Amino acid sequence: MVIVMAPDATSDNIDSLVTLVSAAGGEAYVTRGVSRTIIGLVGDVQRLSNLDLRAQPGVSDVLRISAPYKLVSRENHVSRSVVRVRDVPIGGDHMTVIAGPCAVETPEQTLESARMAADAGAALLRGGAYKPRTSPYAFQGLGEEGLKILAETREETGMPIVTEVVDAGDVEVVASYADMLQVGTRNMQNFALLQAVGEAGLPVLLKRGMNATIEEWLMAAEYIAQRGNLDIVLCERGIRTFEKATRNTLDISAVPVAQELSHLPVIVDPSHSGGKRNLVLPLSRAAIAAGADGIIVDVHPTPETALCDGPQALVEEDLAELRDVAGTLSTLMGRDLTPAPGLEPVQV
Amino acid sequence: MVIVMAPDATSDNIDSLVTLVSAAGGEAYVTRGVSRTIIGLVGDVQRLSNLDLRAQPGVSDVLRISAPYKLVSRENHVSRSVVRVRDVPIGGDHMTVIAGPCAVETPEQTLESARMAADAGAALLRGGAYKPRTSPYAFQGLGEEGLKILAETREETGMPIVTEVVDAGDVEVVASYADMLQVGTRNMQNFALLQAVGEAGLPVLLKRGMNATIEEWLMAAEYIAQRGNLDIVLCERGIRTFEKATRNTLDISAVPVAQELSHLPVIVDPSHSGGKRNLVLPLSRAAIAAGADGIIVDVHPTPETALCDGPQALVEEDLAELRDVAGTLSTLMGRDLTPAPGLEPVQV
Amino acid sequence: MVIVMAPDATSDNIDSLVTLVSAAGGEAYVTRGVSRTIIGLVGDVQRLSNLDLRAQPGVSDVLRISAPYKLVSRENHVSRSVVRVRDVPIGGDHMTVIAGPCAVETPEQTLESARMAADAGAALLRGGAYKPRTSPYAFQGLGEEGLKILAETREETGMPIVTEVVDAGDVEVVASYADMLQVGTRNMQNFALLQAVGEAGLPVLLKRGMNATIEEWLMAAEYIAQRGNLDIVLCERGIRTFEKATRNTLDISAVPVAQELSHLPVIVDPSHSGGKRNLVLPLSRAAIAAGADGIIVDVHPTPETALCDGPQALVEEDLAELRDVAGTLSTLMGRDLTPAPGLEPVQV
Amino acid sequence: MVIVMAPDATSDNIDSLVTLVSAAGGEAYVTRGVSRTIIGLVGDVQRLSNLDLRAQPGVSDVLRISAPYKLVSRENHVSRSVVRVRDVPIGGDHMTVIAGPCAVETPEQTLESARMAADAGAALLRGGAYKPRTSPYAFQGLGEEGLKILAETREETGMPIVTEVVDAGDVEVVASYADMLQVGTRNMQNFALLQAVGEAGLPVLLKRGMNATIEEWLMAAEYIAQRGNLDIVLCERGIRTFEKATRNTLDISAVPVAQELSHLPVIVDPSHSGGKRNLVLPLSRAAIAAGADGIIVDVHPTPETALCDGPQALVEEDLAELRDVAGTLSTLMGRDLTPAPGLEPVQV
Repeated sequence: MVIVMAPDATSDNIDSLVTLVSAAGGEAYVTRGVSRTIIGLVGDVQRLSNLDLRAQPGVSDVLRISAPYKLVSRENHVSRSVVRVRDVPIGGDHMTVIAGPCAVETPEQTLESARMAADAGAALLRGGAYKPRTSPYAFQGLGEEGLKILAETREETGMPIVTEVVDAGDVEVVASYADMLQVGTRNMQNFALLQAVGEAGLPVLLKRGMNATIEEWLMAAEYIAQRGNLDIVLCERGIRTFEKATRNTLDISAVPVAQELSHLPVIVDPSHSGGKRNLVLPLSRAAIAAGADGIIVDVHPTPETALCDGPQALVEEDLAELRDVAGTLSTLMGRDLTPAPGLEPVQV
Repeated sequence: MVIVMAPDATSDNIDSLVTLVSAAGGEAYVTRGVSRTIIGLVGDVQRLSNLDLRAQPGVSDVLRISAPYKLVSRENHVSRSVVRVRDVPIGGDHMTVIAGPCAVETPEQTLESARMAADAGAALLRGGAYKPRTSPYAFQGLGEEGLKILAETREETGMPIVTEVVDAGDVEVVASYADMLQVGTRNMQNFALLQAVGEAGLPVLLKRGMNATIEEWLMAAEYIAQRGNLDIVLCERGIRTFEKATRNTLDISAVPVAQELSHLPVIVDPSHSGGKRNLVLPLSRAAIAAGADGIIVDVHPTPETALCDGPQALVEEDLAELRDVAGTLSTLMGRDLTPAPGLEPVQV
Repeated sequence: MVIVMAPDATSDNIDSLVTLVSAAGGEAYVTRGVSRTIIGLVGDVQRLSNLDLRAQPGVSDVLRISAPYKLVSRENHVSRSVVRVRDVPIGGDHMTVIAGPCAVETPEQTLESARMAADAGAALLRGGAYKPRTSPYAFQGLGEEGLKILAETREETGMPIVTEVVDAGDVEVVASYADMLQVGTRNMQNFALLQAVGEAGLPVLLKRGMNATIEEWLMAAEYIAQRGNLDIVLCERGIRTFEKATRNTLDISAVPVAQELSHLPVIVDPSHSGGKRNLVLPLSRAAIAAGADGIIVDVHPTPETALCDGPQALVEEDLAELRDVAGTLSTLMGRDLTPAPGLEPVQV
Repeated sequence: MVIVMAPDATSDNIDSLVTLVSAAGGEAYVTRGVSRTIIGLVGDVQRLSNLDLRAQPGVSDVLRISAPYKLVSRENHVSRSVVRVRDVPIGGDHMTVIAGPCAVETPEQTLESARMAADAGAALLRGGAYKPRTSPYAFQGLGEEGLKILAETREETGMPIVTEVVDAGDVEVVASYADMLQVGTRNMQNFALLQAVGEAGLPVLLKRGMNATIEEWLMAAEYIAQRGNLDIVLCERGIRTFEKATRNTLDISAVPVAQELSHLPVIVDPSHSGGKRNLVLPLSRAAIAAGADGIIVDVHPTPETALCDGPQALVEEDLAELRDVAGTLSTLMGRDLTPAPGLEPVQV
């Protein structure tokens, strides 16, 4: 932090500040300019922040100068990271598509969705067994039963699975089935959950809070990283604004900005951003063209009967176009589309 | 829900919709007007919402017409509720002040803060033992040690305690010490936590998510109520906007709006809204004048050394004014300031 | 501005910056600290801002330290200003109520609204003759005909009139009838209009842009002040957020914040903030309690036939309560309610 | 509009509403369903809106069902429009790049910027002679002198010019030099200006207000169209949100949404959205991939000395990449990049 003194600040003012900072365990470096004095502070930012330095006599302004996240910052880790979900890479020169149903409903619907996902060019299967819903009267997911369906579908298709966990108390059971743990937008600042997934030994897909700044998003990633898990993929999924024509406002700039600030891969969720099927393809194209490391897309064989977010799911006739777009645009962006594992059924 | 058909919709379009709705377990009531046909729907809103009715041929618009929350709605519960924390009432004709330190740091600091709270007119003591912090490097609270300090302070002062719980797994231990459980702004949609506090047998203070609509806030209360706990107090604490001069933007209109939609008491947190000590008194006055059932305020004996949110804490010289404001304005609003229990120390 | 150099910045980096700043007509004061060097800049902020100093080698951060508005700032003008509209004061120890119809429709409706305004405790009459409307198909106001009606109503009631001007080209005609010119929320950054009202010789009521920061609002006031007109009253009227339950979100904190930053009086518009009649009284109380210098309220004899914003207008039965609230709360806040001029008709 | 009656509404309630609507010049069509009655309204939406129908006895909800803009809507004009600026097309199967300096400063800087624009693939030259600036102390543009420089540059380069007009009173003079009139973000609801440019006989570039909904943006276009000018190009340039890492948040979804609602071409301004040079290329790619009809980009030969928005201007080394991106991505999207007119100087 840096304290900017007022032009008429006295030597006593400055001495008092130095004493105050020292008492809080910090160090103060005074540099006297022609018209103003600047005091640079070293020490615990939180303790220094609590000193209410702005309110001290003679102080004109107080400024923070370094990024508050360390492990996920690109400052000390210039090359961009590649996160692997089993064998599937996310980041680097890869373009990775994740697809599947918003919620796991039945084995048939899940298997059919996985087939659709593969047809759309996906290498990873998404599907929710634990659903955070705004209303207590909405479908809350199948729980462990849903995880079993996902595991069976992985058996049949070979696609690693990405699934959400919504409570620290569920991390162990979800981690016993999943290949990648998803932390959803409403839980981005559920710190107990972040710490739990940080210790679960699996890669994490961290969605941006719908009202979180990019800095707060990186701080949430730092919570996971601090527990020793750096296999984190950031996912932009739209923020809340005054605009009502879309479910959320996709912050497309967040892709290049987060990639510049952090070494973690950044993907985009065009389905939850727009909330409408006919926006998924334009937003997917925008995401890849902006430089995203991947996209995560809802598909459903019969969206009109889906138990969750049917209106935003892609259907059969959209799949070829998505795969084509992902392939062509990725090439243009110098990336390889991570191949779908195919649907060779496991011999029983 | 109501479907508004386009002027050129055909009878086939209408028949198809009726069939679609029936297949989803709903009922459709068709009313044919001169220029348009309107179809009223009865059935499970979630399932109906998934039909993507807007995309069906002939449909012009689809509209939802009833409040999605039932138990906390004022529709079927016209009189406003009074919630009791031990003997201290919140709601009705009462004005209740809750005050205390943002975080419990030491027994001395907590006891001194409780004394300050009582001097400020508070009937309840707030204090955090589990702190959700944006940075993993910030002070995270003393945990159970903090709860013990709060319980000791209650012994000495007689003030019931309000304290935050941040994870469903901690509800049992926090409930064993606390008189009222607080759910913080970042956890307003931590549904596992909402359900856990709904079953804990204690009144709940539910802060509004900093980006939550009033409807979502009431839906979060519905999660608690659905578990059989209707002793819920709503707390407006500022929302996130583009304005940078304040920490958050206090949505003062949320007080009359939430009181009209719900029978639950509504209080205001002027400390976290503004984020600055000099805004606490103006915003407290505004809250009481807008009709709030109470306020919750940060106080600290030495904010310059506070481990959390020092700059927004009231100090000794502010207390008399807050007590005076709370008393005078409450009378003007036809409310009685709930008396502070005083500081008669327990004989040891 | 202040440049914070990176720890590894070289002397050459610093020298280059000094040269760059000098070339742009500025002066650079270098202060070398133990770990970092800080460079204070003096000069034209705009030109310095264009240097893209952040992108220069060795620069860690660039910070602006002084308020960009001068004439309306409280820094050099500590005592709070009183603005007079004819004989009616706004600011200081006064509480001033402005009321009237959103739009002037007929002489009868305007006169009746003026009587209602006076009954509600208003000292000034508001009424729109030029209405900025989102839709080109909405009622746009009576234009000069409306101004004449306002002037006649002033003749009959003695109440000075406040009316909006929406285009620089209309300032002359509006100023020939009005006692105070209003600049509306959509025109807060219509700089040609700001400059024109700055030269019109009348006090100005400057509404905050619905998406303007407080700083931008003060900059807009500075545009008016720069033309030599310091008789400016600021009006908070709600900002745009994600909340849908109210028309806008009244930023009640803007009252104490703007009063601290500027010497200009600050009033509140509870009618346009909430957009609903039943919110006007709670928000009026909140405004006065927060320290506002006045309020501006819509009244209408028959809101159900109003040509503009009927749903938010107060009606006959609300008037006594508003007058009572304004009187009682003002006293509590140490202010005198500016008396209504009464309705003694002018002898013809 | 549609009135949804409450289940317990009486026949008297319904009769009263019909009478009320008739009195306001509207017609009411009553359709009685099993559980509810629906009343469809036909008539002047503004007058009906003022009836405060929601407050009438027996009314459950009131809903608006048709788009409030007519001329710019795609409903009655399904094919997408092509707007021509002299011979340069915008819309249809074209991809049009507009580039130039934020502000016209000198003939040399403008000519050099035009050369850069052409090198970047631009077919139209942008440049501001009248600059709306937040601060009255910032550079406000050269005025007519700047227009003359633009006209001279057009002489030398053949590129038609797009330039902003900020006040209705300036439209005539600006239109006498310009080929396309730009209405800026701060003036999107300056209705006098919209009407004036609607009558100026030139195509208009209408920037979205930084806090305007897409509906309000289309309503602003309707103001221009209502004066008989349908040669309007919409420009998304970022909206204001809580995110601080970018100057504004580019609402990329606005491209497909506006194109679905309106037949007008939609372009994107990646320079003002992000506010940083290194975001311009990623956002340009995203815009083209999302289906935009064009982009408008800041370029400057020496951004470090620019009088306006230097930090976001592209420089020499970016031009080839932008041209390449615009060409390749346009082809992929099935569009032809509108050729730059080149720099063949006019023989004198």
